[in-house]
Amino acid sequence: MLGAGAVGRAVAELAGEYGHEVVGIADSSGAAVDDDGVDVASALAAKDEAGTVGDADPADVLEADYDALVEATPTTLDDAQPGFGHVERALARDRHVVLANKGPVAERYDEVRELEADSAGEVRFEATVGGAIPIVGTIEDRGPEQVPAVRGVLNGTANFVLSRMATEGLGYDHVLAEAQDMGVAEADPSFDVQGTDAALKCVILANLLAGGGFSLSDAEVEGIEGLPGSALELAAEDGRTVRLIGEASREGVRVGPRLVPAHGTLAVSGTMNIVQIETRHGGRMNLSGRGAGGPETATAVLADLSRLSQ
Amino acid sequence: MLGAGAVGRAVAELAGEYGHEVVGIADSSGAAVDDDGVDVASALAAKDEAGTVGDADPADVLEADYDALVEATPTTLDDAQPGFGHVERALARDRHVVLANKGPVAERYDEVRELEADSAGEVRFEATVGGAIPIVGTIEDRGPEQVPAVRGVLNGTANFVLSRMATEGLGYDHVLAEAQDMGVAEADPSFDVQGTDAALKCVILANLLAGGGFSLSDAEVEGIEGLPGSALELAAEDGRTVRLIGEASREGVRVGPRLVPAHGTLAVSGTMNIVQIETRHGGRMNLSGRGAGGPETATAVLADLSRLSQ
Repeated sequence: MLGAGAVGRAVAELAGEYGHEVVGIADSSGAAVDDDGVDVASALAAKDEAGTVGDADPADVLEADYDALVEATPTTLDDAQPGFGHVERALARDRHVVLANKGPVAERYDEVRELEADSAGEVRFEATVGGAIPIVGTIEDRGPEQVPAVRGVLNGTANFVLSRMATEGLGYDHVLAEAQDMGVAEADPSFDVQGTDAALKCVILANLLAGGGFSLSDAEVEGIEGLPGSALELAAEDGRTVRLIGEASREGVRVGPRLVPAHGTLAVSGTMNIVQIETRHGGRMNLSGRGAGGPETATAVLADLSRLSQ
Repeated sequence: MLGAGAVGRAVAELAGEYGHEVVGIADSSGAAVDDDGVDVASALAAKDEAGTVGDADPADVLEADYDALVEATPTTLDDAQPGFGHVERALARDRHVVLANKGPVAERYDEVRELEADSAGEVRFEATVGGAIPIVGTIEDRGPEQVPAVRGVLNGTANFVLSRMATEGLGYDHVLAEAQDMGVAEADPSFDVQGTDAALKCVILANLLAGGGFSLSDAEVEGIEGLPGSALELAAEDGRTVRLIGEASREGVRVGPRLVPAHGTLAVSGTMNIVQIETRHGGRMNLSGRGAGGPETATAVLADLSRLSQ
C-alpha cells in the first residue's frame, strides 16, 4: 500500500476484515514492511504519533512480496508522478495494481494500458470515480462498447454548495465558507469548485468507454465559482435547480453547471454523487451513493481486490 | 440456452455482439443444436413461423458442447422444476450456469450452492433480481457479509399501478385494466400485484446475504390488490406516496405497501425498479433502472457471462 491518507488508512484498517493481508504500507516519509503481515494498528498509531507509519524506506514497499499494489497517494496532474512510476514498477513485476489515485488513468491512460498488456498484472480503478459507487465495474461488466455515454454529479463539495445555496437561499461565498468550516470543502477549494476533480473522473470514464485517448487537457470544464444566487432562484421558479454535471462519451468530456429538474434523479443533495449510465440494450441505469470519504472510497478499493482474487 | 421467451430470445440475439457463440437453444417443444454455432436468426424465425426453434429434442441442448448454460425457462415455485434439474445437470458436467429463472435460487438455494461446491462450474444469477440493474454483482463485489440489508421496488407492474393511481387519482381496478391493455400487466396479474414476484427477488437477495436458508415460504408478503385510492390521497396530503417495498436481510424477507416520501429516492415512477444496498463501511448505495423487459434482462445475463469469461 502506497499512501496513508484518509483512503489508504481506511483500506489498511479494513483489509483484514475483507480477507487481505497488508505486507507493506508507506506514506511520503516512511514505511512498514513485513512479509508475514504488517501490524496495521501499530503502523497507523505510529503515523499519528511520529508522523510516519514506520522507519523503513518508502521505496521498500515496492520490493515487498505483494500480490496487488494499492496506489492511494495524492492525485497529481500532467505526468501523474510519482503514481505513474509506481504503476509501472508493479506491472514490471507482474503484480496487480488497484488505483485510488486518479492521475495515472486520467493523464496517462494509454501508457497504463500498454504496460498492463505486457504484464501478468491487471490494473483496476473503481475508487477513482464516485467513491463507493460501483461505476467502473458496472461499465466493464456491461461492456464499454455497449455504453454510449455517462453523466452525473461527481464532486460532493460542489454539490453541497449548490444544494445548500438552493435550499437555503444563501450566497456562494457564505455557503463555501460554511462548507470549509464543516470540513466538506478544503481550505483551497479550487480543485473542486472549478470542476477539475469532476473533469478528471469524467476523463477516466471517457478513457474506459473509448479505450483511451483522453487526458484532462481534452476536457471542456466550467466550474461553479461565484455562481450568483439569482441563477438558482430563477431555476427554482421553473421547478429546476443547478448541478455541476460531468458528461463522458467517446466524443469527449464536458463539465459545467447545468439546469436539472428540482426533484429529478440528477438533483442529489449534499455530498451525494450520482451517475447515469446509458446502455445500448439495457436502458439507463442510475447509481448513487457516497462519492467521497476514506472508508467509502476504501470499499471500492476492496471491491477491486475482491475481483482480482476471484 | 434453455428458454426462448422474451429474455432467452434477447440473449440469443445479442450473444454475438457480446462475443459469445450459441451452440444450442431450446424452447419447450424443440431445439437447434450446432457445435459450430447455431444460426440464431433462423432459429428465432423458425419459432415465429413454426412455433419452435428447431427439430432437435430440447434435451439435446444439455448434451451440447457448451461452456455456460443460460437457464431462461419460466420461473416455477416449490421444487423449481425443470429449472433446478437443468442446473444440476450442467454442474454435474462442470459447466457454468447463468440463471434468468428465479426458481432454483429462490426455492432451492442451498442445494444449488452444494452442487456448485462439488463442480468446477459456477452459478450466477444477476438477471433474477432487478432486470438490468447490477444488484447481485455489486453485493458480491462489496462482500455479502458487508451488507446488512437491501430494500427496494422490485416489481414494475405493481409500481406502474401505484404511481399512476397517485399521479392520476384513478382507482386500482381502472389502472390495472389500463396496464393490461398496455401490456405492462399480465392477463393474470396476481403474481405481480400480490407481491409474489417481488418476494422471490427478495428471497434470492436474503439467500445471497445470509449464504442461504430462505425460500418463498419464509417471506411475509402483502400485495397491493384492491388498495383504496384514499390511501394514496391521504399519503399525498402528507408529502408521501405508497410503493410496494421489498426488504431482505439475514433476518428474513418482508414485502408490502409502504409509505415513502413522494419525491424520495424510493418513489421511482412507472415500471422502473430501485434497490438501496446498505453497506457497513460504504454507506447506502441506490441503484435504479429497468427492472424487466427482454433486452434489459438479457444485458444482466450477458454481464454474468462476461464475468465468467474473465
